[in-house]
Amino acid sequence: MVVTDSVEQYPLGYTPSMDHIIIGGVAGGMSAATRLRRLDEDAHITVIERSGHVSFANCGLPYHVGGLIEDRESLLLQTPSSLGRRFGLDVRVGTEAVRIDRERRVVVVRELATGTESELPYDHVLLSPGARPVRPPIPGIERALSLRDIEDTDALVAASRPARTAVIIGGGFIGLELAENLTHRGIAVTVVEATDQVMAPLDPEMVAPVHDHLRASGVTLRLGSAVTAIGRDTVTLSTGDEDAPVEEVRADLVVAAVGVRPDTRLAVDAGLDTGPLGGILVDSRFRTSDPRILAVGDAVEKRDALDGEQVLVPLANTANRQGRMAADIMAGLPAHDRPVLGTAIVGVFGLQVATTGWNEKRLVASGRPHRVIHTHPASHATYYPGAEGMSLKLLVDRDTDAILGAQGVGREGVDKRIDVIATAMAGGISASALADLELAYAPQFASAKDPVNLLGYVADNLRTGLARSIQWHELDEAVADGAVLVDVRTREEHDSGAIPGAVLVPVDELRQRLEEIPAGPVVVHCAVGQRGHVAAQVLTHAGREVRNLDGGYRTWLAGTSARELVAVA
Amino acid sequence: MVVTDSVEQYPLGYTPSMDHIIIGGVAGGMSAATRLRRLDEDAHITVIERSGHVSFANCGLPYHVGGLIEDRESLLLQTPSSLGRRFGLDVRVGTEAVRIDRERRVVVVRELATGTESELPYDHVLLSPGARPVRPPIPGIERALSLRDIEDTDALVAASRPARTAVIIGGGFIGLELAENLTHRGIAVTVVEATDQVMAPLDPEMVAPVHDHLRASGVTLRLGSAVTAIGRDTVTLSTGDEDAPVEEVRADLVVAAVGVRPDTRLAVDAGLDTGPLGGILVDSRFRTSDPRILAVGDAVEKRDALDGEQVLVPLANTANRQGRMAADIMAGLPAHDRPVLGTAIVGVFGLQVATTGWNEKRLVASGRPHRVIHTHPASHATYYPGAEGMSLKLLVDRDTDAILGAQGVGREGVDKRIDVIATAMAGGISASALADLELAYAPQFASAKDPVNLLGYVADNLRTGLARSIQWHELDEAVADGAVLVDVRTREEHDSGAIPGAVLVPVDELRQRLEEIPAGPVVVHCAVGQRGHVAAQVLTHAGREVRNLDGGYRTWLAGTSARELVAVA
Repeated sequence: MVVTDSVEQYPLGYTPSMDHIIIGGVAGGMSAATRLRRLDEDAHITVIERSGHVSFANCGLPYHVGGLIEDRESLLLQTPSSLGRRFGLDVRVGTEAVRIDRERRVVVVRELATGTESELPYDHVLLSPGARPVRPPIPGIERALSLRDIEDTDALVAASRPARTAVIIGGGFIGLELAENLTHRGIAVTVVEATDQVMAPLDPEMVAPVHDHLRASGVTLRLGSAVTAIGRDTVTLSTGDEDAPVEEVRADLVVAAVGVRPDTRLAVDAGLDTGPLGGILVDSRFRTSDPRILAVGDAVEKRDALDGEQVLVPLANTANRQGRMAADIMAGLPAHDRPVLGTAIVGVFGLQVATTGWNEKRLVASGRPHRVIHTHPASHATYYPGAEGMSLKLLVDRDTDAILGAQGVGREGVDKRIDVIATAMAGGISASALADLELAYAPQFASAKDPVNLLGYVADNLRTGLARSIQWHELDEAVADGAVLVDVRTREEHDSGAIPGAVLVPVDELRQRLEEIPAGPVVVHCAVGQRGHVAAQVLTHAGREVRNLDGGYRTWLAGTSARELVAVA
Repeated sequence: MVVTDSVEQYPLGYTPSMDHIIIGGVAGGMSAATRLRRLDEDAHITVIERSGHVSFANCGLPYHVGGLIEDRESLLLQTPSSLGRRFGLDVRVGTEAVRIDRERRVVVVRELATGTESELPYDHVLLSPGARPVRPPIPGIERALSLRDIEDTDALVAASRPARTAVIIGGGFIGLELAENLTHRGIAVTVVEATDQVMAPLDPEMVAPVHDHLRASGVTLRLGSAVTAIGRDTVTLSTGDEDAPVEEVRADLVVAAVGVRPDTRLAVDAGLDTGPLGGILVDSRFRTSDPRILAVGDAVEKRDALDGEQVLVPLANTANRQGRMAADIMAGLPAHDRPVLGTAIVGVFGLQVATTGWNEKRLVASGRPHRVIHTHPASHATYYPGAEGMSLKLLVDRDTDAILGAQGVGREGVDKRIDVIATAMAGGISASALADLELAYAPQFASAKDPVNLLGYVADNLRTGLARSIQWHELDEAVADGAVLVDVRTREEHDSGAIPGAVLVPVDELRQRLEEIPAGPVVVHCAVGQRGHVAAQVLTHAGREVRNLDGGYRTWLAGTSARELVAVA
């Protein structure tokens, strides 16, 4: 059930000197508190935070564990006293909100150090409790550390000092950031991931280079494996294969990073509605089922930008934005939330891995007709030193040409391209119209045809029917159906690795060697797709039915190696 | 006069085996030629190029002069023979298109080496001759080198080897790139610029840090100065002040980089229309006044995205895009051009300087009501190592909240923010809605509130009237009218540099010291504008009329130092 949104004026209207209690003093809560003060100098604003710190840099915690951020104080962006001076906020750390008495309109709070309870009256409550790390029900899980706040960070730093081996359970954002940072501490890290891949928001062929890079950086990956028990200095792994021997892996340190779950205890206890995904249910003005209580951030369910359905998007930037808008609403301003794309990025040993919108897995599962585009451009003009290769994937609505999502992996400039695509999605720019974007070009920064422009060119060729493509996972079936596979790369490229059964006819010789192509439908491929496109046009003109292997040999190799890895595991 | 665009089908329609002659074999011309081949395997496509090279990396030329791109061959992206093999193009370098005989539908071409002339019949001609460096009419100008093609580059490399001093006339993109690269060669460089600033697309307060950075990098800047004569190893400078002594500056090497002018000789000789700015006039399908002759790139006038007027935008990415679309049109596809924002970037000794859309100078000149926003954010979370400061400027339509332009200067991440803003402009995203963009955040790449989001927050506060700002150049008048200037920074910041007459009341003490603020309207300021915003809200609540100095002390300092510099010069 979704709380019905109404267009009525916020029922309380705006009265100065209201009591606002904000529960949770990090991203969403602190954005709300400071904005609220700027909107209302008279309001009584109290911030309740269970941990010992507010406004800390949660996204920086893994890098303090790794020692890259040496100074622990630099993670503490504000303190209760600095917030008191600057914003006149009553910030209470080490204090837990025990319960909300909605009838009497008080929040019962407890000082954790003394156990003293007291009641704070409210006109509004803003819940910004965030999400809690999931603790999988494994024997010995009490030994596993998590990473949510400064206290967790201190514990991890202390535990990592004597550690020589670590097992991280979960290959998501925090798991990978910790894998990098513990490796930097000289610890041998094993990441255990129950699914076939790390970084669930990516599709398998996009995550393959991430797997390679993690391994090359010294991380041991155990995909398709579960930790079934945590011992004193080992963990027990299982692949689900009953015939396989039980395996013990050394683990001086165990970290549980299998994901997070909305922290709804207080909301549920107060009888507020939660949604189908277990988050607090709010309307488009962040009101829970009690309109005096608002909620934002990782704890609430959000609306997806593509289909309007409820989603959980535990991201700091979204929490910040929501907190600020909730303050506007508490102050009587006409703000309302926005559906979310969920743009995200993680840095892993120098590799940038970023996504926005939906991935192919989700589109397939939802049955939404879509087109897929893979490219492998350079981060900037290749003739200028330091250009790095990247892989991009664009997902496009087959009917409307709307952009549905994008993924990028590479060492440089991936953040920029994903940001541009996310902005294009927000602006309703179609996939083909990415070709028209005027992006800043000098050879240090981009190419005259930026990677984003090139995605638009490919999208336009597919949309107009000028080009037809085939995906890496469709190749086997096409060949089984009689398609001829033609490799149009050079002899040297072919000899250093080729798709089994491919006939080699380099693109520059194709016009002279048309008769060598056996009868039947043709699939052409090159390394990344560009020469394949030229060859496809030549063959189409010669009357052949042609498809170009999208993303070329590189995408095929990534996709099939990901699949084989699954088969082996 | 603008050529009237019609909605009729392209008059020739599409017939295979047409003769297409493309004049100019670099960005626009070569994009057109290769696209045309992919659209039409039967077409006869001839590319005529006066210089000895096609498809070379013109934006890389300065970096070969500086030695950063060591291998000259890497600038030659394609050769006539590689283009022949791959695309079946007849590429003729060292060949000049002498004239177009429109009646007989032939182009007369001359091989420069032999002087042999011949005639090439055409169905279509595409003019992509580019722009020529302007040669100012100065005595001795024949000694000045320019930089347009590979031959120019070779000449500059040869001339720079023995040179110890160089004067570059003109402080635009190419002038600054050459200043950097000649400095890297160990040459003492003086840039002589007739106006008060380098980089005309920037407003003066944004270019001030560029001036500082150029000087700190060893470049001598002579602003507001003209070269009046070029001698054997000196140039003569004049500031226009008749009382000042004539000055001679050593110059083993002189480069003219005062700008470019559309190369319209062939078009004018053929009787084709040119526009008010001296470029070839084309309709929205790149047709000149003769519909069999199309034109693209630096040689043509384009339509401005903001006001639809004719503009000259000599940028490689625009030329590439236009070339590709012109090929579509020559092949009978329904493409048409797009108005241009003119997004551009230049790297100068590690500093990124980027712009999109209009600047304030142009808005003021056109009388368009606008708002100005300056910010000084960090490239990524400051607690993560390596964050760099940047300065951003956003120009906003006062009536519609539309984004009209942006400028950025900084060492890291400026390219990304300008690309995001250019994309937002293309998508019609309002300035306030920049706050809602979901941009990829991890502490290595951005802040949870990205600099682009922050621009949106400021824009929204101004739009709704929550905040009022004052610009650096309006401050003197406001003070003269009785405004009280309050510096809300710390004592330490104030003592290390302050605006004359400012009363110091640190923001964190403001609530307790309200009575110290003298009567009258108030202007508050901090270092960059954020604390000023908090202070302005406190004072507004106390009943005071308040404006916050936009961009804070930093923008004021940049703006006034730029102005003083002009006064001195």
